[in-house]
Amino acid sequence: MSASPNDSAEEAAAVFPPTYIVVRFSRHIKTATLMWLVDKICGKRLDGGAELLVRRQPHQEGEGLTLHISASKIKFLEVAQELELKKRDRCGLIREFTVCQLDDFLEDGMHVDDLLTTADRQYIVRHELENIRALKEDNLVPGYPAFRLYEGQSIVQECLHWKLLKHVYPLHDQEALEKLGKKWYLSLFGKQPFEEIRLYFGEAVALYFTFLGFYTLALLVPMTLGILQLFLSSESIPFFCVFNVFWVTIFLEVWKRKCSELAFTWGTIGMTSLDEPRPNYHGVMGIDEVTGRHQPQFPRWRTNVRLYCVSLPIVLLCMIGAFFVMLASFWAEEKLISMKKQQGLEASGLLILLPSVMYSATVFIMNSYYRKLATWLTEWENHRTQSQFDRHRVTKLVLFEFVNNFVSLFYIAFYIQDMEMLKNQLAVMLIIFQAINHFQEAILPLLIRYYGKRVTKALKFNSVLGKKEGGESDYKKKKSTLNHSPESKMVDGIAELEHDDPRIEQANREGEMENYEGTYDDYLEMFIQFGYVFLFSSVYPIAAVWAVVNNVLEIRADAFKLCRLCQRPMGRRVKNIGAWQRAFEAVGAMSIMTNCGLLCMSPQLRRLAPSLTSVEWVLLFVILEHMLLGIRHILHLVIPDRPEWVRVALARINHQSKQALKNEVIE
Amino acid sequence: MSASPNDSAEEAAAVFPPTYIVVRFSRHIKTATLMWLVDKICGKRLDGGAELLVRRQPHQEGEGLTLHISASKIKFLEVAQELELKKRDRCGLIREFTVCQLDDFLEDGMHVDDLLTTADRQYIVRHELENIRALKEDNLVPGYPAFRLYEGQSIVQECLHWKLLKHVYPLHDQEALEKLGKKWYLSLFGKQPFEEIRLYFGEAVALYFTFLGFYTLALLVPMTLGILQLFLSSESIPFFCVFNVFWVTIFLEVWKRKCSELAFTWGTIGMTSLDEPRPNYHGVMGIDEVTGRHQPQFPRWRTNVRLYCVSLPIVLLCMIGAFFVMLASFWAEEKLISMKKQQGLEASGLLILLPSVMYSATVFIMNSYYRKLATWLTEWENHRTQSQFDRHRVTKLVLFEFVNNFVSLFYIAFYIQDMEMLKNQLAVMLIIFQAINHFQEAILPLLIRYYGKRVTKALKFNSVLGKKEGGESDYKKKKSTLNHSPESKMVDGIAELEHDDPRIEQANREGEMENYEGTYDDYLEMFIQFGYVFLFSSVYPIAAVWAVVNNVLEIRADAFKLCRLCQRPMGRRVKNIGAWQRAFEAVGAMSIMTNCGLLCMSPQLRRLAPSLTSVEWVLLFVILEHMLLGIRHILHLVIPDRPEWVRVALARINHQSKQALKNEVIE
Repeated sequence: MSASPNDSAEEAAAVFPPTYIVVRFSRHIKTATLMWLVDKICGKRLDGGAELLVRRQPHQEGEGLTLHISASKIKFLEVAQELELKKRDRCGLIREFTVCQLDDFLEDGMHVDDLLTTADRQYIVRHELENIRALKEDNLVPGYPAFRLYEGQSIVQECLHWKLLKHVYPLHDQEALEKLGKKWYLSLFGKQPFEEIRLYFGEAVALYFTFLGFYTLALLVPMTLGILQLFLSSESIPFFCVFNVFWVTIFLEVWKRKCSELAFTWGTIGMTSLDEPRPNYHGVMGIDEVTGRHQPQFPRWRTNVRLYCVSLPIVLLCMIGAFFVMLASFWAEEKLISMKKQQGLEASGLLILLPSVMYSATVFIMNSYYRKLATWLTEWENHRTQSQFDRHRVTKLVLFEFVNNFVSLFYIAFYIQDMEMLKNQLAVMLIIFQAINHFQEAILPLLIRYYGKRVTKALKFNSVLGKKEGGESDYKKKKSTLNHSPESKMVDGIAELEHDDPRIEQANREGEMENYEGTYDDYLEMFIQFGYVFLFSSVYPIAAVWAVVNNVLEIRADAFKLCRLCQRPMGRRVKNIGAWQRAFEAVGAMSIMTNCGLLCMSPQLRRLAPSLTSVEWVLLFVILEHMLLGIRHILHLVIPDRPEWVRVALARINHQSKQALKNEVIE
Repeated sequence: MSASPNDSAEEAAAVFPPTYIVVRFSRHIKTATLMWLVDKICGKRLDGGAELLVRRQPHQEGEGLTLHISASKIKFLEVAQELELKKRDRCGLIREFTVCQLDDFLEDGMHVDDLLTTADRQYIVRHELENIRALKEDNLVPGYPAFRLYEGQSIVQECLHWKLLKHVYPLHDQEALEKLGKKWYLSLFGKQPFEEIRLYFGEAVALYFTFLGFYTLALLVPMTLGILQLFLSSESIPFFCVFNVFWVTIFLEVWKRKCSELAFTWGTIGMTSLDEPRPNYHGVMGIDEVTGRHQPQFPRWRTNVRLYCVSLPIVLLCMIGAFFVMLASFWAEEKLISMKKQQGLEASGLLILLPSVMYSATVFIMNSYYRKLATWLTEWENHRTQSQFDRHRVTKLVLFEFVNNFVSLFYIAFYIQDMEMLKNQLAVMLIIFQAINHFQEAILPLLIRYYGKRVTKALKFNSVLGKKEGGESDYKKKKSTLNHSPESKMVDGIAELEHDDPRIEQANREGEMENYEGTYDDYLEMFIQFGYVFLFSSVYPIAAVWAVVNNVLEIRADAFKLCRLCQRPMGRRVKNIGAWQRAFEAVGAMSIMTNCGLLCMSPQLRRLAPSLTSVEWVLLFVILEHMLLGIRHILHLVIPDRPEWVRVALARINHQSKQALKNEVIE
């Protein structure tokens, strides 16, 4: 390789700043490929490189090369400007950061290093890494002529796909993490430290925990009513039905408002589908119509054709398939019960559980395949931004999960019409389902970690616990030592970290931790719970109590999982909960129908007006349901999506920038 | 009065530019008040004046003072910049006009006078006139101590309210009008000249005609199907039901997209509720949070309290009242019929019509009172912008009109369940109602004009027709003559127009013409027609044919009315059809319910599956209706409100202005 990976001898000799991302190469990667990749990572921008700083870990037996990636101070600031990161300036205004106005963004006593959070820095390094895009001349990967690249593809993503790269992950900051943990999962009754969560884990994770907290708080109202209902007559059920409409609608609308407030203070409110493309977005390189930058271009209509002509039918087919699997399970159960009755076999007691168990297993397998399918389809649709990608992926998954989780309840409620069975089913699902989840999420990984690995890694593990510190804090302490021994070894032209650098140990340890796959599973849990609580709340109003109990545990468990059990997730910028908002709204609308239906079917209510015919009962259902749907729609229209102050603040920024544009053209 | 109304002798002596607005004072107004008002109109901005140019008409027997108002060239440009009027620049980009960049907005060969349309100029003069706001010291009107003003009130609006001003209206431009007419109502098969309409009448009127044209075009599809249905069996009705859902939803969504395209090219797309307040908006003068300008401030929550706590209950009460009036009319009719049967009275044949006639009369009277009430309430709610005001006023009116026009049909369809009666009612209403409208709108005023006034004003009228020209064109011709006789007479310190100035005659003539009260009545007609065509289309599919016939006539009739029968309306800037979009959407949603209901009630369909019970039929209705509502909702979500190119163009402007803001702060 012609160019030296690190630009100058000076830089190579200087202290290596904190590692933000660790890249692990495959053990079998060819040296030419490796050097080409490293060259891309460190190379000049003009040559298609990312201008990042790298250090290699000392060679370990049976492991591929591991690189620690960081960037220079000025690089961070430059990319922050390019990515239009929004920061609060001295006047309290949230606006796009620019290097030239650096001073405006530094509040009194604030150092320039404190301006960008570690989540920001990780985001920047990752963005640069993922945006190393193939140039025209990079039509194939050196050393692997079978792997073809085309202009504009994200090289790192493709190498991960081909398994040339094993793993790309950020490192934890132990000091900050411990501070965060104390305020968060260790404080049982404190408010969640949302701002710290955001600074450490990024916006997506912070938004999830804000949602979880807000939802749990809002659940206290139905919980109280659910408990009261225990002591009151069952005639209060119509009241619950109407109350739930208001509660669900207002909860979701207020959440939307809260989201826009958060997005405004986080500077993500202006995110659109025309923003910076995500790394896997591919297309012919061209001039972006909005920014005038060189970016991959892919016509929107092709995405739409793929979405509506291919993905949509496939998803619908899968949903129908899942529905028939459910029907088959019910049919098998019925068959078994009737067989049992006919033959009077006592021994087949356990056999009756077979269809349920089989069904659960099938759903589990279907789910894992469907998840891959959905991800692949969404990838193939080639959405431009990460938010769009997430939204379309979540939509596909939620539709399928809806069939798996709720349709059987609909079947019991409206086809079999067995309210006792429905109630039991709900109770079992709410309690068992949530217990299993907690076990899976928090307890199981802990057990595996403490018992499974204790034997094999006893020695190694002890040394880790003995140190208890690493990453950034160590880096600061070691700074002076490192300065005295600048002669880092150069292997393959890449400077090596010192043997006793704690980051090596940390990178290895965290590389083996579980990967946090984004907030999808966490939202899904809440979504399913929301459905259980509200879809059939008139049958089982106490459900909200279980939900609150679960959520209080969930907050701590999820926080613990994130801080202790998982690799540090990549920070992701979001402005709202995306497709989940619509999913919750859809369940809200459906809950009106189901509850009205249950109400008009309930024998207690029918006893009140025995003179009404069946037709009149159904008409009563129709009228009640339409009125409630109407009220919901009106509430939806009447509550503005953004609070007044956000609207004014946005209008002010808009006004100012328009004025600036006018002035600029004059000059 | 201290200041001379026109600033300098020079200006007073110069040619008076075309009159844009005519202001007629009350005959009885006191001189002190008059001079105070004139002073406000001509005064310096710093003294709270509008810096407009005025000329008085020579005194006429029995008439109050009539002022012609115009503005200097530089004033027009300055206010255009202040109002952020958007114009297309040389590069084809639509952006806010600024005086400094004047050259950028002038395409080759374009004179600076052609930059602003006459509608723009009228808008500017009117804006300046209406924005003469009371200062702190103007706490009462000179000469009328009983009339109190408070800071920030629009003086012109208040004087109109107190009848100190009789009339404020713009003048037609005969030359342009004739050109427009040839392309518009005189060309029977040509496309409507939308751009010319906009330039002459402003955005609101242009949007109405675009809507009318678009709607009529879209109606051709249901019309064709309606005609086909005549030759096919009545079993095609379920198909109509489903087709209409798609048609109505897609029509409204596509219209929304079209609206945003138009609004973008017209530069009105960025209008928000935080824009420039409308003249009647009042509040304490304060610094506007967005622009930093001095503007009246009124807290939004007070508007909301008035809206939801006072207006909403009143409107609901009125609707309930109207509903009971309808019931009473049906009840009376029934009573009369049964009386007739009992007593066998042949003579009471005409008596049976009495309830219908009474009902029509009551509705007419109720409507006129309710209209006043709604306007007053909306005024009292004190909405900031004209669009908000219109939206809330239209919402109030539409709710009431809905009860008056459609609820009786619902009653016939679902309570009496007499399909023949429904069909007849629909036919009568569609044909008679529309014929009456045409008569009222176009023929009646013409008759009054030609026959009623022919006798009294024969001489005067002939002279008008003989001249056939006036306004701007005359002004241009007379320019040379006028230049030679600059010694306009000064009366009360106000320069007088020459005795033979054609504008005097024109102002008098147009002052007596009918006032075009905005697009409300025109949209209402379309709305009622839309309801008749789609709410019960499965009973009467041929309705679309009548609607198309009506609309083709309507376009010409409305155009003729606007150009020939009405005073020139004040140009109004809009970005969409406001509350009408929602009103049409609501009828669209309701049409799903009604058509599904009619379908499941229809004996033809019931004959197809005689084995189904009543309950099953109702359930069938519920399922069908929910599926269609679901499809509608999905279409609504899936079709973006703005076309891709508009989104990209807006994002580009946004990006540019953000860049400019960044650069500005640097400098």
